[in-house]
Amino acid sequence: MSSPLAIREIHARGFARAWQIFRAVVAAGDTYSYPPDIDESQARAMWTTPPSRCFVAERDGEALGIYMLRPNQPGLGDHVANCGYMVSPHARGQGIASAMCEHSLALARRAGFTAMQYNFVVSSNEGAVRLWQKHGFAIVGRVPGAFRHARLGPTDVFVMHRAL
Amino acid sequence: MSSPLAIREIHARGFARAWQIFRAVVAAGDTYSYPPDIDESQARAMWTTPPSRCFVAERDGEALGIYMLRPNQPGLGDHVANCGYMVSPHARGQGIASAMCEHSLALARRAGFTAMQYNFVVSSNEGAVRLWQKHGFAIVGRVPGAFRHARLGPTDVFVMHRAL
Repeated sequence: MSSPLAIREIHARGFARAWQIFRAVVAAGDTYSYPPDIDESQARAMWTTPPSRCFVAERDGEALGIYMLRPNQPGLGDHVANCGYMVSPHARGQGIASAMCEHSLALARRAGFTAMQYNFVVSSNEGAVRLWQKHGFAIVGRVPGAFRHARLGPTDVFVMHRAL
Repeated sequence: MSSPLAIREIHARGFARAWQIFRAVVAAGDTYSYPPDIDESQARAMWTTPPSRCFVAERDGEALGIYMLRPNQPGLGDHVANCGYMVSPHARGQGIASAMCEHSLALARRAGFTAMQYNFVVSSNEGAVRLWQKHGFAIVGRVPGAFRHARLGPTDVFVMHRAL
């Protein structure tokens, strides 16, 4: 039997544990618009500088997934949360994205957010789209060709949303 | 006869000329999600720190409108431009937003962007929605209640897009 998955918050000083996953996911160029050659300090700043908060999902001390939670807008839009999730290429198909999504929804609700919005879900990432739909998200927008997919070229991007 | 409108780029040091317009538009709480009590240094940083570029539309030396152009995403999404436009409350109905939109579209095209996206067009701002449609933008998304309008309360937000 595998140990349970633990999800806990990390801060800038602990970002090294997240960086290997961040780098691997972004380097693939198939799900995130971050520059594929982004460096650790840039990634750390974006994911750990308040109001962004960063979390690691781990099992037996090994980091298997990371996610970031923040207000999607400042000021008069800061009641809507935004998240980004990344799973280690070695840990796919274990329900880690799903567990992080559930964790983030509960956390966002407790923090007072009344909705969550994903701005940039790459349409070719069909597994993710289905997973977010299973977790209550609806596609509320589709932006043509907004992502230059490393293999597929210009690819549409979905805006997804759910109330909390 | 009124003098022609001139549109020129400004940088951080020249932002004071833009600030009066920025402050007045944001304080109204009906079109932008920036905190209504945002201060000049925060506004200046957001609108003039590269890759953001800031422009002033002026007539007879008086600033009547301002706009900001930037990539909407980093990395693999940086072929899509994003803009925000603000017109002085004293200069509405003179075609200034339209002139700035035309200017920004031409500039974005020259800079190599292949599309432009507005992420946060407040749906109650019907004049703006119609104006962007007239300039070739389509509504590609609608996010429910994403803006806390100062008078109307929770208000839907449009994502608008056009190819360049």
